[in-house]
Amino acid sequence: MKFAVVGTGVIGSGWITRMLAHGHEVIATDPSEGAYERMLKQVKQNWPYAEQLGLAEGAAIDNLTFTPYLEEAVKDADHIQENVPEIESLKDQVLTEIDFYAKTDATIGSSTSGIMPSELQQNLQHPERLIVAHPFHPVYILPLVEIVPGKATTEATTLKAEEIYESIGMDVLHVRHEIEGHVADRLMEALWREALHIVNDGIATTEEVDKAFTHAAGLRYAQYGPFMTFHLAGGEGGMRHMLKQFGPALKKPWTKLVAPELTQDLYEEVVNGCESSSQGQTMAELDQKRNEFLVKVKQLAESYWPEDTPSMKKKTQQSVK
Amino acid sequence: MKFAVVGTGVIGSGWITRMLAHGHEVIATDPSEGAYERMLKQVKQNWPYAEQLGLAEGAAIDNLTFTPYLEEAVKDADHIQENVPEIESLKDQVLTEIDFYAKTDATIGSSTSGIMPSELQQNLQHPERLIVAHPFHPVYILPLVEIVPGKATTEATTLKAEEIYESIGMDVLHVRHEIEGHVADRLMEALWREALHIVNDGIATTEEVDKAFTHAAGLRYAQYGPFMTFHLAGGEGGMRHMLKQFGPALKKPWTKLVAPELTQDLYEEVVNGCESSSQGQTMAELDQKRNEFLVKVKQLAESYWPEDTPSMKKKTQQSVK
Repeated sequence: MKFAVVGTGVIGSGWITRMLAHGHEVIATDPSEGAYERMLKQVKQNWPYAEQLGLAEGAAIDNLTFTPYLEEAVKDADHIQENVPEIESLKDQVLTEIDFYAKTDATIGSSTSGIMPSELQQNLQHPERLIVAHPFHPVYILPLVEIVPGKATTEATTLKAEEIYESIGMDVLHVRHEIEGHVADRLMEALWREALHIVNDGIATTEEVDKAFTHAAGLRYAQYGPFMTFHLAGGEGGMRHMLKQFGPALKKPWTKLVAPELTQDLYEEVVNGCESSSQGQTMAELDQKRNEFLVKVKQLAESYWPEDTPSMKKKTQQSVK
Repeated sequence: MKFAVVGTGVIGSGWITRMLAHGHEVIATDPSEGAYERMLKQVKQNWPYAEQLGLAEGAAIDNLTFTPYLEEAVKDADHIQENVPEIESLKDQVLTEIDFYAKTDATIGSSTSGIMPSELQQNLQHPERLIVAHPFHPVYILPLVEIVPGKATTEATTLKAEEIYESIGMDVLHVRHEIEGHVADRLMEALWREALHIVNDGIATTEEVDKAFTHAAGLRYAQYGPFMTFHLAGGEGGMRHMLKQFGPALKKPWTKLVAPELTQDLYEEVVNGCESSSQGQTMAELDQKRNEFLVKVKQLAESYWPEDTPSMKKKTQQSVK
């Protein structure tokens, strides 16, 4: 399996590190000045963390080649990962070139966080082998990749892409429909916008918002997402009880985001989804697992949290009349 | 220090566990049938986790007393924590009773997640000693408590409350202005509403949304909140670079939540906040700390994540045309 990486910034270098760590050969390309030195510096900085997570046999930074010429990088590659800046015209231009030079049976994954795959496919000769494969920074540590096929993507490409990303240790999330921001970034963007509103309205500072998140919800979210978190907050009744108790709060101005109508269909989908995720474990068993995890993650996180700054320590003097 | 806890459900029992674990005497009250047995069962279930986090000298479940009579519970207490169901008329009634029977120099903390303290103070004889003190489930593990003074709360009460909650091992976040949902729940609510939209629009199932969150952003959020996360995603330029690159995305429909205008004031507040949180550490140092943490938390979380369900494993077959 020969990998090519087009664009060697933070995300590109992250992909390279992950591919090398899994024992693959990688050829990288980036036309910008000093790109080679910056890439190599980053990959070397990333490497110790890849080592801690475990290297495949034969994994080495030496398996990395660099060329300033896109054609040379992509012509023999089995899989090409594109990570150029998030400007649609630039992506279009670079993908057209990749499409022109790559083998017709090569797959092309775009790391785009915001652009939909069908848009990226518009000008390609072989759009059927392009798919969005959106990773998370740092790519060599975080396992999630969101795979989003476009209208022209064939099922064979999707299956092959899943295999490729799994072969480099990733957890594939197959997004069912194209939307701007895919899934994970939409969740992050909602959080980000609400956080900006809170700072903008003078309710809390950025440091206080961050602390409010990391010292409570953030610890929980390392284990369970928003649905299972609320399922576990519902006591014996789980999500069923939560929706009964906090469903009405969806009408309240607790955020500037307007919620969807809690229809019977949505209710059932949410409740059934949580029960499916529970895989037969009782609420007590789930509670116990969560507690075990939270004790450990809290102890781990404590030494990594930013310290309170002087302005936070003097909070009472500042903010009480 | 004598603590009284009014309402002994999941949150009340959580407070009791935390107070007992820090070596205090607690008297609890709840008028509902079977409350005593349920409370004792929960405190006993919680206890092993309090033990793992470390008990204070003399800490014992035996320091807990129960009475069905509110007057008896609160009359000699130095601090009273109210945790009755989130119904405003019920809160009002119970707080009026607490206010009537408690010592005038006792402090009263309400665990309300949604009601503003000034509303709760309206009918009290001694509103100056009431404050909102909102914890997170499980209260005996998660350290955050949001403290929100109402219009009638005195500075002396706020200072005393801060000391009390710190004495039971909590990290106090002082919310600068009363708003519905305080700070942390507003962030969680934005995330929750966006997650409901994604499920409602058929983009992903609850399990997929949860996985999209836990396997990437959620791991990061156990250490850094939304601001520092983006600060670290900005490379050498930090938040300054991020806002330049992703500021325009605030206009895009990446969530159903409308963002605030990115004014110069907001820009500076966000950038300066992140630089203050960094406390002189370079981006490279911050990056390294984040990586160290992420490697550890990922290894820890892996064995605690819910397994993929059969419907997720067959995702390609289901969702590709």
